[in-house]
Amino acid sequence: MSTIQETIHTMAREARRAARKMTSLSTESKNRALLRMAEALVQQKEFIRRDNAKDLAAGREKGLSEAMLDRLNLSDKTMDSMINGLKEVAALPDPVGEVSEMVKRPNGIMVGRMRIPLGVIGMIYESRPNVTVDAAALCLKAGNSILLRGGSEAIHSNLALAKVLQQALAAENIDAAAIQVIPFTDREAVTCMLGLEELIDLIIPRGGEGLIRFVAENSRIPVLKHYKGVCHVFVDETADFDMAINIVMNGKVQRPGVCNALEALLVHERIAADFLPRVGAALDKAGVELRGCPKTCAILPQALPAGDSDWGTEFLDLILAVKVVPDLDAALEHITNHGSQHTEAIVTNSYANGQRFLREVDASAVMINASTRFSDGGQFGLGAEIGISTTKLHAYGPMGLKELTTKKFIVYGEGQVRV
Amino acid sequence: MSTIQETIHTMAREARRAARKMTSLSTESKNRALLRMAEALVQQKEFIRRDNAKDLAAGREKGLSEAMLDRLNLSDKTMDSMINGLKEVAALPDPVGEVSEMVKRPNGIMVGRMRIPLGVIGMIYESRPNVTVDAAALCLKAGNSILLRGGSEAIHSNLALAKVLQQALAAENIDAAAIQVIPFTDREAVTCMLGLEELIDLIIPRGGEGLIRFVAENSRIPVLKHYKGVCHVFVDETADFDMAINIVMNGKVQRPGVCNALEALLVHERIAADFLPRVGAALDKAGVELRGCPKTCAILPQALPAGDSDWGTEFLDLILAVKVVPDLDAALEHITNHGSQHTEAIVTNSYANGQRFLREVDASAVMINASTRFSDGGQFGLGAEIGISTTKLHAYGPMGLKELTTKKFIVYGEGQVRV
Repeated sequence: MSTIQETIHTMAREARRAARKMTSLSTESKNRALLRMAEALVQQKEFIRRDNAKDLAAGREKGLSEAMLDRLNLSDKTMDSMINGLKEVAALPDPVGEVSEMVKRPNGIMVGRMRIPLGVIGMIYESRPNVTVDAAALCLKAGNSILLRGGSEAIHSNLALAKVLQQALAAENIDAAAIQVIPFTDREAVTCMLGLEELIDLIIPRGGEGLIRFVAENSRIPVLKHYKGVCHVFVDETADFDMAINIVMNGKVQRPGVCNALEALLVHERIAADFLPRVGAALDKAGVELRGCPKTCAILPQALPAGDSDWGTEFLDLILAVKVVPDLDAALEHITNHGSQHTEAIVTNSYANGQRFLREVDASAVMINASTRFSDGGQFGLGAEIGISTTKLHAYGPMGLKELTTKKFIVYGEGQVRV
Repeated sequence: MSTIQETIHTMAREARRAARKMTSLSTESKNRALLRMAEALVQQKEFIRRDNAKDLAAGREKGLSEAMLDRLNLSDKTMDSMINGLKEVAALPDPVGEVSEMVKRPNGIMVGRMRIPLGVIGMIYESRPNVTVDAAALCLKAGNSILLRGGSEAIHSNLALAKVLQQALAAENIDAAAIQVIPFTDREAVTCMLGLEELIDLIIPRGGEGLIRFVAENSRIPVLKHYKGVCHVFVDETADFDMAINIVMNGKVQRPGVCNALEALLVHERIAADFLPRVGAALDKAGVELRGCPKTCAILPQALPAGDSDWGTEFLDLILAVKVVPDLDAALEHITNHGSQHTEAIVTNSYANGQRFLREVDASAVMINASTRFSDGGQFGLGAEIGISTTKLHAYGPMGLKELTTKKFIVYGEGQVRV
């Protein structure tokens, strides 16, 4: 074994040991630890900043873009957001220990399900050091250990943050191995983590599609992931135009660089001639480039002809694909072929079409008359979000605390045996 | 691509196509199809028997054991059990479409979760042809397509059963590709299935540990599995002796060859001298071989000294490992080190120890004062069982209809956008 492999094995074994003890931590103890972590970030801001400055300097030397440097920077605002995040997670209800579905069987045994932690979570991410704190907080509250492997750009910041968080854990008598940052940024460190199926229960990758594909293709451990968000809005023939324009503009313009932003607009052909010029004018004014099907281009002179590759593309930019479709069935078919199972919305006043869309679209979030931008753990009321899953096993959609747990069966008997 | 690869790709694509249509099947239609399938098995019994006879003849020629031939044989009893299974699944509530956790968010959007089918299930199993029918029935009811790949011993039986089931589907206007048996029994067929991550959503292997390890190690698709069941009973110092003896005997003797049978007995040292001779006499009478720790052997002359490999072993036979432990903590520690996360039980009259055991044991089913043999979908009230999972993601423990589904988020809005 290489040094990297040996170190990661040892860290994972310690994470497993810590996880075993965490299953019986009280909610109060976890909450106190989270508040201590918040306090520690306040007190050790200068220490953290010093190490963050090393990353920033290295980043500048490597010629990282301003956007990348901005993500790396632990500014006052980012620090405050991490600190508030810790306090918010402390305030969330503890999912662990909840018992549900308890039934009495004919022989008198009581059978139910108890929510329990998953165990050890492996988080693989890129350049945002705030993920270190946000993910550690959620994992701790759900009773899990976390092994964090961030990108090389943020390594000093991540190690400094982990040190501060571990001190807070130790002060609360929680095994500090519950939160560990892997000190290696080589690919080998990722590959090694992905093979530790006996020690790590779940891998959550966050970052670009390349990283996520690498993780998915090399992991022996279950992975919760989403590659991209190609969200559609279908404006049905009965849609309220003002509402539809609002939802389209919000989806495309409010924050175009995120996965729940709108990438394609489908319009019922009966209203296309009336609706498209109105939504087109609004999009124009916001500087959105339109790439339309032939019917769209015939109505909107400013639209460029869409190429095949424009359907199903995550532009993450002020670009919108627009297609006129003959009916709801064609809209559903287009979404099946080009959607990414992230978030899909219909704008309609037809009860029947709304219900059909809700039922038939296969996506982690399906909406009637609302902006795709709501597809988010915070907006959905999960309290906080560890990521989004567009695969269906275990979790589908935004993942909060509950998705970091599972349920075991419990049985209360009085000596019953099987006949 | 080889012929095998091409055929399996085509079958999987057809299964995906069928699955898309199945999401909107009515419960009535699925139930009618299940009852038609039951009817078809009755009517086509002779046709099925003829092909089953080919498998039996080939099995005899290959020198299969009587036990293996028995598993292969579609006797009247097995046929009746499959037919009743279909009727029972038809009578179960349909999990698909259920909406839960609906909340109103501060901005007025209503956010909830709707239960939906998983999509395409790949089932990989060995010699029991009845799995073909049982698994197909559950998958159909949950709105999923199923691709079945059984063992070479049962290939004629499996293909005959699939043909009969597909005729019943077609008569109900359901895409017959919803239930398909892969006609190849080469390993290559399994490897090929395990790589089709875009077309198959979940793999469920059933069979020996070798098959399951092969599947887990080669799959790009999530796998729900259990390797083995090494179930323990801990008899606490406050246990009622008669109850404890009953539970031990039921666990070990009633059906020793199954995964929820008892494999190891842990006894609190304060009662060992009184309890062990009593349980030992009962076990002796039933012909159970005991392999004990030194303290056990000192009390029970008939016990053989246990070797290291006896702890954590799934005997599947009339053999029981027995250990005297100083207290609950030592019992918990032993279970952590040697359990298989399947089923663990305590016999106790101590409220505190019972609750601690329930909370702290990491197993898919944890019981107080009940036989481990209850760990089963039918016994737990799930209606029917597609398998057992001892990994924590998505499902932990016996899996019924619900575990063949997932939930998506649904949003009812009135034009809300994100600010």
